[in-house]
Amino acid sequence: MKHILVTNDDGVTAPGLLALAQAMRQIGRVSVLAPDHNWSASGHVKTLHRPLRVKEVLLADGTPALASDGAPSDCVALAMLGLLQEKIDLVVSGINSNANLGHDVTYSGTVTAAMEAAIWGLPGVAVSLDMSENHAPGLDFTPAAQLAGRVVGAVIEHGLPKNVLLNVNVPYLPADQIRGLRITRQGLRVYHDALDARKDPRGRPYYWIGGDFPTGVAEDGADFGTLAEGYVSITPLQLDLTAYKTIEVLKDWGLELG
Amino acid sequence: MKHILVTNDDGVTAPGLLALAQAMRQIGRVSVLAPDHNWSASGHVKTLHRPLRVKEVLLADGTPALASDGAPSDCVALAMLGLLQEKIDLVVSGINSNANLGHDVTYSGTVTAAMEAAIWGLPGVAVSLDMSENHAPGLDFTPAAQLAGRVVGAVIEHGLPKNVLLNVNVPYLPADQIRGLRITRQGLRVYHDALDARKDPRGRPYYWIGGDFPTGVAEDGADFGTLAEGYVSITPLQLDLTAYKTIEVLKDWGLELG
Repeated sequence: MKHILVTNDDGVTAPGLLALAQAMRQIGRVSVLAPDHNWSASGHVKTLHRPLRVKEVLLADGTPALASDGAPSDCVALAMLGLLQEKIDLVVSGINSNANLGHDVTYSGTVTAAMEAAIWGLPGVAVSLDMSENHAPGLDFTPAAQLAGRVVGAVIEHGLPKNVLLNVNVPYLPADQIRGLRITRQGLRVYHDALDARKDPRGRPYYWIGGDFPTGVAEDGADFGTLAEGYVSITPLQLDLTAYKTIEVLKDWGLELG
Repeated sequence: MKHILVTNDDGVTAPGLLALAQAMRQIGRVSVLAPDHNWSASGHVKTLHRPLRVKEVLLADGTPALASDGAPSDCVALAMLGLLQEKIDLVVSGINSNANLGHDVTYSGTVTAAMEAAIWGLPGVAVSLDMSENHAPGLDFTPAAQLAGRVVGAVIEHGLPKNVLLNVNVPYLPADQIRGLRITRQGLRVYHDALDARKDPRGRPYYWIGGDFPTGVAEDGADFGTLAEGYVSITPLQLDLTAYKTIEVLKDWGLELG
């Protein structure tokens, strides 16, 4: 039976984590080690400038978990460095309460936790729910958790190539309205950030990164467009960011000549 | 004359930033907006959960700069969102006082600042100095700053493809011992992290991510191997992380069938 590490970036008390942990228990043995607070848009972190704390907590269903004051990727590193004594076979991160599409992937704590797994040589799967237009309380993570189970089951059956992770995004729809699963490429996000400059009670300026929720370019075969059509998007991501086509372009610049 | 934004992840007082800003002033008009403290291995951050402060400071050569309590990528976003009123043409990040090679790139504040520039549609160049075996005080950033000037000059002349950034690593050698510049691919880092578990004065455990300095796989044409041979490594990186070769593999799993 596989030993699955479950983490997230919304924090150990997030309902998306509970739903994911419960779905993973149908597949394997589960350990939870997740941040003790929200790390959304925190990026791929390795905390080296301060030590990390770990405490034992209980999830809302009474099952034991570990919470750390590190980032999602720190949680994976701590587990792999021996904090969890039993060998880990697979890391699953989520369920994030927003989609992680296009350029989101390097910002995303959910995705970078799966990236950290890949760096450690393990299969990593990030799972996010696209609730962008459904901020109502009482989000139902059940369909997404079930679909995550299907994807993780396939990962256990087939394995993932070295240095590859999966970025799974699920539309926020009732299970019977989700049209299916599609393998996609990373698409293009369109951010609508705006500077919100304010003054504190002492008249000094401070700045929120504000603005509107990101949208994206609805392309066939890409994560954003596929999700918008009601499909689950499964994008394989790699650790190698080399822009291979640009290598030849740069060689023509003559920088190598002297 | 081009308007160059200079930032870094070691913080606004770091000597590597000063050397880079001075070299960039030979090429264009320079604005400095950098973190007010060290953000090494902080990843690609967009700070949304708290507002950011910005203050006016002076670099050690008496020139004005802005310091923010955000991450390197936040500094780029703040500048682009209008904190710097004048249009920015190019972002240069560094000079980091350690190499950023292989899997370092998604952790690195230096590299993710250049990544943020690419997301904003600007050329981004990250510059790092490989002082892994030279932790002596009084590091000389001059050769690296001059070489950064050469690379940035070429970027201004030729432009960079959309969604591509450059990751430049310079060996820590006197200028006349640097063998030249090479266009490379991202290589493979080998991390030697270890868990350093300690007890606080009250007997409660805490954990450092400790261990030894990372090494790498010395491959021909890759960043680590090229740098180790005494060349400057210039790696084009892209925002698209899709593992295209894995798409066909995943399609064979049958997940799309229903």
